[in-house]
This record gives sequence, structure tokens and C-alpha cells, in this order.
Amino acid sequence: MDDQTERALDDSALIAIGTAHTPWRAGHCPKNLTDARAAGLAEGAFRIAVAPAYRAGLSGLSAGDRMWVLTWMAPGRRDLLVQHPSHRLSPTGVFALRSPVRPNPIGLALVHLIAIDIDTGWLTVDALDCFDGTPVIDLKPYRPGIDRAGPDR
Amino acid sequence: MDDQTERALDDSALIAIGTAHTPWRAGHCPKNLTDARAAGLAEGAFRIAVAPAYRAGLSGLSAGDRMWVLTWMAPGRRDLLVQHPSHRLSPTGVFALRSPVRPNPIGLALVHLIAIDIDTGWLTVDALDCFDGTPVIDLKPYRPGIDRAGPDR
Repeated sequence: MDDQTERALDDSALIAIGTAHTPWRAGHCPKNLTDARAAGLAEGAFRIAVAPAYRAGLSGLSAGDRMWVLTWMAPGRRDLLVQHPSHRLSPTGVFALRSPVRPNPIGLALVHLIAIDIDTGWLTVDALDCFDGTPVIDLKPYRPGIDRAGPDR
Repeated sequence: MDDQTERALDDSALIAIGTAHTPWRAGHCPKNLTDARAAGLAEGAFRIAVAPAYRAGLSGLSAGDRMWVLTWMAPGRRDLLVQHPSHRLSPTGVFALRSPVRPNPIGLALVHLIAIDIDTGWLTVDALDCFDGTPVIDLKPYRPGIDRAGPDR
């Protein structure tokens, strides 16, 4: 890792397994998932369309599940390592922020799966804080045993 | 998303911002972070070396923080949409599993930051469940307000 020419990863082409459908357009996206959830939109405002080739991977998910949605938030600058969001007192490193502008612009959102139709690939979730049309690159089940920070760790 | 030729993402080259250093080699990697944490290894067994070009992005992180570590778990097959892990009664879709074998093999681990040296780029964390040498592609702060599943959502 000391040689900067080694930083690009081989075999690292990301695939869109689906697309996020949200009410958010440029200039009208909430800062975070809490704000998106609080927007009071009707059920159905936030959906994920899973591409046909990946729908078989949905088996085992059910309405009521919590899951992680990973998105690809490009395009955007990937070289802003120190940023000064309005809610921070001073400039802060990107790895201490949840800014969408980062070296690898992967978004991470914990959502509640409200409805799922594996045949059509449509998932309805309770909120998303990404722009309409954002590629979805992974879905993972929420596991309290490993995903919840407790007082002991 | 209906046309499978549209699935590959443009502008999606991942960059390694660092490398995971773990005791785990092929055939000797725990199934999950809980097992990795329970392995009883001495402090310093799990470290992340952040590449020089990305160290400025660490400012604002401190020992004691919880953070997400995103890794790139390639190489591996990316087409196994239904898998049958030994702990499951029946074959299950990959999006309902935390298997490292997935369309985009991104690993997600919630860790405790034990020590950080921004100048040298070394982070010591409490556990990692990836192989030694795995590329690290992102670090994100843990935010209880958005990352913790509560009974109400």
C-alpha cells in the first residue's frame, strides 16, 4: 500500500443489482435517513427495483425484515478527504463523516422492508436518503449480534 | 434495469484506501465477527493500514469510536444467488445472507477503534472477520440514530 500506483483494485467492477426509486431530486434530498424517514411520505414513496438477473437472491427476505441497502452515490468528487459540513464546528476527515462525497461513494442505509415481490423484483422500504435512480449494489440482512453497538464494545 | 446489458456501472472503479491485517488465512477465517471477536487474540491482532494518500481523511476519528469497515472480499464467485450455508435449513438468497460470496463482495463490519495513529495510518480495531490483506474500501462512523434498529422500525 505504500506505492500509490497500487491503490486501484483489480476485479473491482461494481454491478448494479437494482435501482432506488425515491422522491429525492437534485437539491431536494434530505441530509440523512432520519430526515428522510420523518418526511411523512406515503407508503410506496421509497422502493427498490431489483434487476431480473438478481431476483433469485431475494429468497429468504420477508416483509418486516430490517436490512442494509448499499448504494453507489456517484457521480461526485472522490478526492475531498477533509470536508466542512454545516453541522460540524470544524473541518473533519471524510472517514469520520457519512458524507456521500468520499473516495468510494458507497451509501449505507438501514431500512425496514415493508413489502417484497420477488417475481417482479419490487421492494418497498420505509425510507431512503439517496437520489431517485441511484444504483443499488447490495442488500444485506441486519444482524443484531454483529451490527448493534452495545455498551461493552 | 430491465435490460441486462445496463447492469455494469460506469465510474465504478473501487479504490483501496487501505489494507486489513488479520490473523486469518485461507481455511482459518471465522464465520462472522462475533466468532472473530471471541477468538481471544491479543490487542493488535486486527489492524488497518490506511494508505498515505487517504490518511487526511482520518481526522476526527478517535480511539473509542465505533465505526464501520467496508472491505472488498474478492476474488470469489459473484454469481451464486442462492446458497446453502451449513447453519441454514434450506437454500437461501444471497441478499438474505451475510456470505462473502455475492454479486458485489463488499464486507461490512462494525468494529471498535482501539487505537489510531493518523501520521502512520495504522488503526487498531477489536476484530475483523476477513482474510489478511483484504482491501479496505471505506470507513464510516457508527451513528446510533440511523444505524440501530429499534423496536419501532
